[in-house]
Amino acid sequence: MAVSIEVSALSELFPGGLFTSACPSRVILDHVTSKWGVLVLVSLKGRTLRWGELRRSVEGVSEKMLAQTLKTFERDGLVARMALPVIPPHVEYSLTARGDEVVALLHPLLTWVAANAEAILAPAPTCAPEPT
Amino acid sequence: MAVSIEVSALSELFPGGLFTSACPSRVILDHVTSKWGVLVLVSLKGRTLRWGELRRSVEGVSEKMLAQTLKTFERDGLVARMALPVIPPHVEYSLTARGDEVVALLHPLLTWVAANAEAILAPAPTCAPEPT
Repeated sequence: MAVSIEVSALSELFPGGLFTSACPSRVILDHVTSKWGVLVLVSLKGRTLRWGELRRSVEGVSEKMLAQTLKTFERDGLVARMALPVIPPHVEYSLTARGDEVVALLHPLLTWVAANAEAILAPAPTCAPEPT
Repeated sequence: MAVSIEVSALSELFPGGLFTSACPSRVILDHVTSKWGVLVLVSLKGRTLRWGELRRSVEGVSEKMLAQTLKTFERDGLVARMALPVIPPHVEYSLTARGDEVVALLHPLLTWVAANAEAILAPAPTCAPEPT
């Protein structure tokens, strides 16, 4: 039997009340691991995209959720929005230096997920013989 | 002006339809980046915890969400649940080898968030003089 410990594992890894519910780190963690946030950030890795390109890249995202996600990342300084003064309007999105740092940490996670997802979701092999 | 590209950035980084909406990789990404999932996995890094210890570690999680998160991770083979045949019941949770792999990828992200969250959420400095 494992030794039962009474301390909080998370607070031992991250002391000083980090990742408690009202903590800034919890807020930013929620932003960078949000359902659409991860895909938006990784989509912008190394390139500048227009709204429509970003929306097609993050397949399945609604206009509302994409707008909300981008606004959050602009406020956090992870994504830069550039509106060119042309008609029709032309708006481009790219990562900031801070956004680059996050994507460098997210990209290996997505690579792992891409390599392992099918095996994880596959039904467990069975020893029962195939029906003939 | 950046060159406008018509391809999907995400599908260029991850070819073969990865991370499209019905894809296994999208499902598993949602699991390992879920609001509580990240904190549950990182809490179990290098240790075995009982239900109550885990719940205190992931401060703010409801019983329902913790149960749901653990069930998903058991099904995905990321977390192992061990029920000891004692009275009162004693259930322990730990990472599997596959769970260890995910945590090795999540931990640097949380470390970055812990180091940067306050600066991200701090109000931007202003040049206006302090009111006297």
